[in-house]
Amino acid sequence: MSWIGDAAFSEDQPFGPQTLPYGVVAEGVAIRVGDSALPLRGLALGPRIGDLVSGDSLNPLLAAGRPVWSELRARLREIVASASAPRGASLVPIDTAVLPFQVADYVDFYSSRHHAENVGRMFRPDGDALTPNWTHLPIGYHGRAGTVYVSGTDVVRPSGQRRTPEGIVHGPSERLDIEAEVGFVCGGPVASRVSTSRAAEHVFGVALVNDWSARDIQAWEYQPLGPFLAKSFATSISAWITPLEAFSVARVAPPAFDHPVQDYLKCDQPWGLDINIEVTLNDTVVARPPFRTMSWTFVQQLAHMTVNGATVRPGDLFASGTVSGPEKDERGSFLELSWGGKDPFWLKNGSSRSFLEDDDTVTLTATAPGEGGSVVGLAEVVGTVRSA
Amino acid sequence: MSWIGDAAFSEDQPFGPQTLPYGVVAEGVAIRVGDSALPLRGLALGPRIGDLVSGDSLNPLLAAGRPVWSELRARLREIVASASAPRGASLVPIDTAVLPFQVADYVDFYSSRHHAENVGRMFRPDGDALTPNWTHLPIGYHGRAGTVYVSGTDVVRPSGQRRTPEGIVHGPSERLDIEAEVGFVCGGPVASRVSTSRAAEHVFGVALVNDWSARDIQAWEYQPLGPFLAKSFATSISAWITPLEAFSVARVAPPAFDHPVQDYLKCDQPWGLDINIEVTLNDTVVARPPFRTMSWTFVQQLAHMTVNGATVRPGDLFASGTVSGPEKDERGSFLELSWGGKDPFWLKNGSSRSFLEDDDTVTLTATAPGEGGSVVGLAEVVGTVRSA
Repeated sequence: MSWIGDAAFSEDQPFGPQTLPYGVVAEGVAIRVGDSALPLRGLALGPRIGDLVSGDSLNPLLAAGRPVWSELRARLREIVASASAPRGASLVPIDTAVLPFQVADYVDFYSSRHHAENVGRMFRPDGDALTPNWTHLPIGYHGRAGTVYVSGTDVVRPSGQRRTPEGIVHGPSERLDIEAEVGFVCGGPVASRVSTSRAAEHVFGVALVNDWSARDIQAWEYQPLGPFLAKSFATSISAWITPLEAFSVARVAPPAFDHPVQDYLKCDQPWGLDINIEVTLNDTVVARPPFRTMSWTFVQQLAHMTVNGATVRPGDLFASGTVSGPEKDERGSFLELSWGGKDPFWLKNGSSRSFLEDDDTVTLTATAPGEGGSVVGLAEVVGTVRSA
Repeated sequence: MSWIGDAAFSEDQPFGPQTLPYGVVAEGVAIRVGDSALPLRGLALGPRIGDLVSGDSLNPLLAAGRPVWSELRARLREIVASASAPRGASLVPIDTAVLPFQVADYVDFYSSRHHAENVGRMFRPDGDALTPNWTHLPIGYHGRAGTVYVSGTDVVRPSGQRRTPEGIVHGPSERLDIEAEVGFVCGGPVASRVSTSRAAEHVFGVALVNDWSARDIQAWEYQPLGPFLAKSFATSISAWITPLEAFSVARVAPPAFDHPVQDYLKCDQPWGLDINIEVTLNDTVVARPPFRTMSWTFVQQLAHMTVNGATVRPGDLFASGTVSGPEKDERGSFLELSWGGKDPFWLKNGSSRSFLEDDDTVTLTATAPGEGGSVVGLAEVVGTVRSA
């Protein structure tokens, strides 16, 4: 038995030793073990790695690269499994967690076919559901890095312009929405033209992302240069970043396209991930989006993002795009769940929703299969809507 | 006569005491005086301000805010005008200048009506030249902060997907272009919902920006979420940031719209700027875009960017969008100058261009009227295209 106690080692504990996500609490850089945090400052990790995790940000660790990440993870698994508490090890609460790294650039993709088709049908009813480029490249766009907030941060309802039957008005969004996504935190050396076979070396870990979206602002502003204010007010991310290595048994083949993709997007290994997301509104689970249904994988996204010569650097964050499966209760946005407001969905307390109301709380959680029948967790993303 | 010598004080010197732009050279934070740099480290600026400019980045100064910027500028004008060299003052070469600040978020607007109409006619020949939102809000989108490079950095021709009559191909862009823009460097306290009357307090200074663009990549990728790889490979910015205060006599009223704008976009003061840009390709001036023709001003852009609750923070950079005037030789992109390649333009050496060729060098320069008949300069942006 470990010094940490049995609870963190039970089979259904998503934050047991198979996971060990990284975050930053009041005591500095830490890993999460069960529902506690283990600060790394003061552990016997050697001077080189010890220095990387002695501060209040994951950025130095992100920059260090895969060999260091693997070495540290192996050492931390020993420490967690140790029978007696190693020198300097003590558990602290996780509720002081802050945004664990400085976000460099934030890119959001659009890689769920089901989501793109649903949105296309609603926003462009007279055109094809998918734009012709969709099956040829992972469509993406840059978001606002300065408004990425840690889980638990309230989200104030954004204001903006929208088109109404009475004309253009400015005021609080009336169609505030979520987007349930999976985010990838980049690290390692600054690089460009990263191949699909090398892309995983530049991904430190995985988190949940809620890309809050104001659909009425978006519909009016997004032509011709894409969404801007509809997305830039807030993006929420897990406080804990699950290392990519934790997903070794969750890898699956993504859905195939019916035509070959360009060479730089071909993959010699399957990099779909069998992550199962749960979207909870207040006390009701409203959707269970399956990440394995995403058409473009994160290695293809990273290869695409850098194929033009753009660099990826430590702290870059890119997100998958809304995760929606083929079934109605697998859709990762209210826009889709309520079909643009035409078909509201019901909560346990008997109320219904098309879009978010003030004081609504949205929680995203997710798990993936782990080694030896264990469960790997992605830390929750929680946010409560506050009035404008 | 000043210790610096007469040349920096001649009437046609754009970097005389009326300008004093900030940058970073090998000796640290500096101002440019004529064709030399005056490092600020070691000058008698007092401990508080001295600390802000003692490093290798403008970021601490950006964060300090308007009262400090004004105090420092007044002190530096005294130092430059002094008859004998103040203690610690010596001029050094400007050719070691680096990117002077860490770019936080980069936003690019689209605020020239002439540019938007020209592009609309070419990209969407069957629709209206302007999308219906254009006259109601300053359209903008996020760009890649990590690939903003200082003037003088070579630009490698980007690769990407494009649609050809033979199908989708991947390879070097064949329609590589420039966009001549004016950029605004933000500072002061982190803020949101910045009003147009307060926006200038959050702008430290002004620079030239060349937003290199691959038109063939853009045409294929940009629907529905906007440009991505077509822009993200490189954006060039002046090495020297001209303080906003230097433009006090360059302020003009922008062109009016034929309908009232939303209240949050109304301005009680004119914030158009009479900046005259010159675009030189190799040894030929190919365009003279007039910034005063821009429909949306930087205060409207900043008010819009934050009206949804998004924050602006020190180091944020936003650019105007391509500056194009009504005349053919006032267009700030090759796309417009050659009308999509249908009408190539001529260089002095007898060759013609539709888009950029390898080894082409593009230089943007600009001036504005300054106090007492002087000329205020924006430092050049130079970039040479290298083969893919």
